Amino acid sequence: MNILVTGGAGFIGSNLCHTLFERSDKGTLPVSKLVVIDNLSLGKKEFIDDLLQTRPNFHFYHQDLLEFDAVHKIFEEHAFDVVFHLSANSDIGYGAKFTDWDLKQGTIVTYNVLESMKRTGVKKIVFSSTSAIYGEATVLPTPENYGPLLPISFYGASKLACEVLITSFCHNFEFQTWMYRFGNIVGKNGTHGVIVDFIKKLQKDPTQLEVLGNGKQAKPYLYVQDCVDGILYGFMNAKDQVNFFNLACDGATSVTEIAQLVLKGMRLPEAQLNFTGGDRGWVGDVPQVRLDPSKLAAAGWKAQYSSFEAVSKAVDDLVVQMKP
Amino acid sequence: MNILVTGGAGFIGSNLCHTLFERSDKGTLPVSKLVVIDNLSLGKKEFIDDLLQTRPNFHFYHQDLLEFDAVHKIFEEHAFDVVFHLSANSDIGYGAKFTDWDLKQGTIVTYNVLESMKRTGVKKIVFSSTSAIYGEATVLPTPENYGPLLPISFYGASKLACEVLITSFCHNFEFQTWMYRFGNIVGKNGTHGVIVDFIKKLQKDPTQLEVLGNGKQAKPYLYVQDCVDGILYGFMNAKDQVNFFNLACDGATSVTEIAQLVLKGMRLPEAQLNFTGGDRGWVGDVPQVRLDPSKLAAAGWKAQYSSFEAVSKAVDDLVVQMKP
Repeated sequence: MNILVTGGAGFIGSNLCHTLFERSDKGTLPVSKLVVIDNLSLGKKEFIDDLLQTRPNFHFYHQDLLEFDAVHKIFEEHAFDVVFHLSANSDIGYGAKFTDWDLKQGTIVTYNVLESMKRTGVKKIVFSSTSAIYGEATVLPTPENYGPLLPISFYGASKLACEVLITSFCHNFEFQTWMYRFGNIVGKNGTHGVIVDFIKKLQKDPTQLEVLGNGKQAKPYLYVQDCVDGILYGFMNAKDQVNFFNLACDGATSVTEIAQLVLKGMRLPEAQLNFTGGDRGWVGDVPQVRLDPSKLAAAGWKAQYSSFEAVSKAVDDLVVQMKP
Repeated sequence: MNILVTGGAGFIGSNLCHTLFERSDKGTLPVSKLVVIDNLSLGKKEFIDDLLQTRPNFHFYHQDLLEFDAVHKIFEEHAFDVVFHLSANSDIGYGAKFTDWDLKQGTIVTYNVLESMKRTGVKKIVFSSTSAIYGEATVLPTPENYGPLLPISFYGASKLACEVLITSFCHNFEFQTWMYRFGNIVGKNGTHGVIVDFIKKLQKDPTQLEVLGNGKQAKPYLYVQDCVDGILYGFMNAKDQVNFFNLACDGATSVTEIAQLVLKGMRLPEAQLNFTGGDRGWVGDVPQVRLDPSKLAAAGWKAQYSSFEAVSKAVDDLVVQMKP
């Protein structure tokens, strides 16, 4: 199979690339060629350096997906069978400051990928969506058929815009899709998010940790290997034209619990937690998220780690990875 | 009130402008200034010529909303209190041929309007959305909280992308919105859609009429004056930050019924109906639409005309308007 992974040098993308080659070695998912397009805005070449050095059928393009002609040329050079489209801005706060950022790096970029697929006859797209499309859902845990969809962040708005661009290409041009609405994903090669923020803050000042909000915000955290396994399970097993799943575990972990796990992981049990207060971490933050994972469970897949275990493992990964 | 109507020379926009001045004359909705931005791609200057000649506080800009700087300049020149954002591509078939058309003339244009509003302190936006955001809903009549939202046309995808850009601006910058999911709107100044198509075809060949699909596709049709009245009713009375309503009447009218009404209106009872067959008129067409109008009804508003009456009145309007 010829595979394109957009954002393949990023957090989830780099983990996916490694897993794809492992599966290929085991013969469970044959990879003829694996191509990554990444603008390295959040991704890092070091996350895929080992693959570049050891896998002759691995190709990396340092390329922004906004440049349609250049992207289309890459599609013409390789006969892709499937696109794992993971590239996006994942910094919700940045999107609120620069309101066209998610529009460009989410919506328009996704259009460019879809149109390039259409012009080169690629019909399968796996997409990383988000629970942020549900906005402040009144049904918790939230199932996939929840409505109305009124996201409160530019990130969530853009991901929903991408989902429905994809369903339009599915209907008009016989594409097939697997769309996953992620909770928070954590673990190795993490580049952003609450755990990374906490570690950075404590590296600057090990005596105290500022926590945005009252610490009671709680979301489901999924370990990145579970995320990649879930993505591939759905892709291999779900047969509808438009497949869409919550990708998360049951339950949730609070920001205070995360802060305590980070203090423990950094061996700073004495550090003071200072809460900025309020029930929301920042504008655009959905304070309480619970995702109903039963649809993908009914298809046969379940996360290996609980939300608490995922955070705990991710803290261990990131404390090592971020060592100065 | 200083009002901007985007797409104000178009079908619904031109009717809205006339109604706004009528309300202002009656003192029920004071219009200090009414500005129209329209690129005249579907709109026609003749629809608003009378206002240009008689209303000194009416201003028209022949301007494409894609040009951000020019649009922003218009926002800076006028201190708008509210934007009625009606401008869009409304030709679903065209959007399937040129897949970036709705992205540009829907999503990006709406972003330009919202960002211009933000920069000039305008906080209220009324938006023309569509039942096409519901895709092929399994619940009929479809209520506003229906999910999942999986539109099948680029038009529907773009309108949903716009809705959620608006909710993001609401949450991040304290905007207030009134979004209306239209069924099919018909009547005076109509520029496209099934009735216009049928009249054009019969003008070319009065002996027969080609009908796309099997004629059993059925949707709710709303008379344009009802549409404008409903928009203004919600705007004046609904007080949430994010207000969203289906704007339609109960029931539906089939394509065959419409064809028969057009034959009658054109006094061509002998013309032969030729069905192209299939349950869908074209790719991207949702064959069966029923909208639950009870949310706006609970707020106190109901359409004056039934779907059948709306089509009947619109045929009368358009046969006169389109006389060669």
